[in-house]
Amino acid sequence: MSGRLLILALPGLPAIEPGDDLAALIATALQRAAADDDDYRTRPGDVLVVTQKVVSKAEGRIVDLRTVEPRPEAVEFAARFDRDPRQVEVVLREAAEVLRMERGVVVARTRHGFVCANAGVDASNMNEPETVTLLPLDPDASAERLRVRLRESTGVDLAIVISDSFGRPWRLGITDVAIGVAGFEALDDLRGQPDTAGRLMHTTVIAVADELAAAADLAAGKASGHPVTLIRGAYLPPEPSDAARRGARAMVMPRGSDLFP
Amino acid sequence: MSGRLLILALPGLPAIEPGDDLAALIATALQRAAADDDDYRTRPGDVLVVTQKVVSKAEGRIVDLRTVEPRPEAVEFAARFDRDPRQVEVVLREAAEVLRMERGVVVARTRHGFVCANAGVDASNMNEPETVTLLPLDPDASAERLRVRLRESTGVDLAIVISDSFGRPWRLGITDVAIGVAGFEALDDLRGQPDTAGRLMHTTVIAVADELAAAADLAAGKASGHPVTLIRGAYLPPEPSDAARRGARAMVMPRGSDLFP
Repeated sequence: MSGRLLILALPGLPAIEPGDDLAALIATALQRAAADDDDYRTRPGDVLVVTQKVVSKAEGRIVDLRTVEPRPEAVEFAARFDRDPRQVEVVLREAAEVLRMERGVVVARTRHGFVCANAGVDASNMNEPETVTLLPLDPDASAERLRVRLRESTGVDLAIVISDSFGRPWRLGITDVAIGVAGFEALDDLRGQPDTAGRLMHTTVIAVADELAAAADLAAGKASGHPVTLIRGAYLPPEPSDAARRGARAMVMPRGSDLFP
Repeated sequence: MSGRLLILALPGLPAIEPGDDLAALIATALQRAAADDDDYRTRPGDVLVVTQKVVSKAEGRIVDLRTVEPRPEAVEFAARFDRDPRQVEVVLREAAEVLRMERGVVVARTRHGFVCANAGVDASNMNEPETVTLLPLDPDASAERLRVRLRESTGVDLAIVISDSFGRPWRLGITDVAIGVAGFEALDDLRGQPDTAGRLMHTTVIAVADELAAAADLAAGKASGHPVTLIRGAYLPPEPSDAARRGARAMVMPRGSDLFP
């Protein structure tokens, strides 16, 4: 724990298109930025936070709404709440389970287990007006691929977070959370360790990956469009050997232990 | 939007006791830290994130469990889940409404409108073993008092966030959120502004104060005990003149618009 963090939005990344080699584009942008400012020279322990939007675009997780035939339920819901019925259709296709469908908002559980508005389907920041992005099929695998490719091209083992903006019950506003993680354990489990008063912590498990995603958003900015952010100095719990504890999927609360199923 | 944030945990703060002048102690710690490292010299636009625990302690929001007589419901619940019945009693007293009371966990709405585990009652990091802290009576007012006092003593108008660790439905792990805010608007309302593709954002409201609290926690560390963190370089929406939009209370979702009441 250094007690000192640096968070840098990465400039110079071009608009991402389907099929782009995102890792190569990030490596080039990092190299150019480092030429001007040595802080952009990556080192072990650094985290790259990459927004879902550019990962989905590079992976071709894009739907052209002109190809979508909405089901009657989507047409009816869209008409009531002034939404695009084709977009509602895509949301329903992406939803493994619909938790709420009210007031124009669909809150759904995705196949990954994430609960969020519109099942992660997003129309923002799209240069093609009639298109939306879907979440990556396996964001943890996307993060691991970026990690491996960036290690090859930069020689540095970076940690990767893929972030998305989620709303929350009971609180207004969205915050960025982690939907993909590679290179560290998303949860920092402090149970059994002493607190500052020497008492053992019984319940403290910190969602470090979500805090990294939120911190990155402060530097990235929704409107200014910096999809990649470098974070230096954060304590990262080592990547677990147990596959079940790896990735952002380890933050998905098991259905049986959730008090708000 | 500078695209560059610096986050510094503040060293040298003593253990806080009831009645302590927290603002004066913070000002002294800042001054000492600045003597060693110029980055600790505060400037306008800096945010101080202060954990609930030290604010509650300084304000005497502490309950000695030896003075607490638990009601039968608290005794029964505590016995079933191996909890302290007096602590459960304090939780029930602090709860304006109990949302869930299962598996040893009480999820409650506080008088401030926050929904969290144990209504914000916390036994961690207490040097007196038989005591717990309550949330500040009015965390926004606590933040504003710290802001005014620090402006007087340092000459700099700092923004203040009072943070606490909350769990979330559907996701494992806790993250720090803002329960008190002074000096800026907690929500950055981007609705009506263009995104990077030039399309107007219809729903994007960012909970900046919560992201600042989460970012601070990355530097502060639960076990290492740095209750105050300095954040430099974040975009802070200007403090609204409309009182209803001021403070962390502006992030409390109105009951009628919550899909998960």
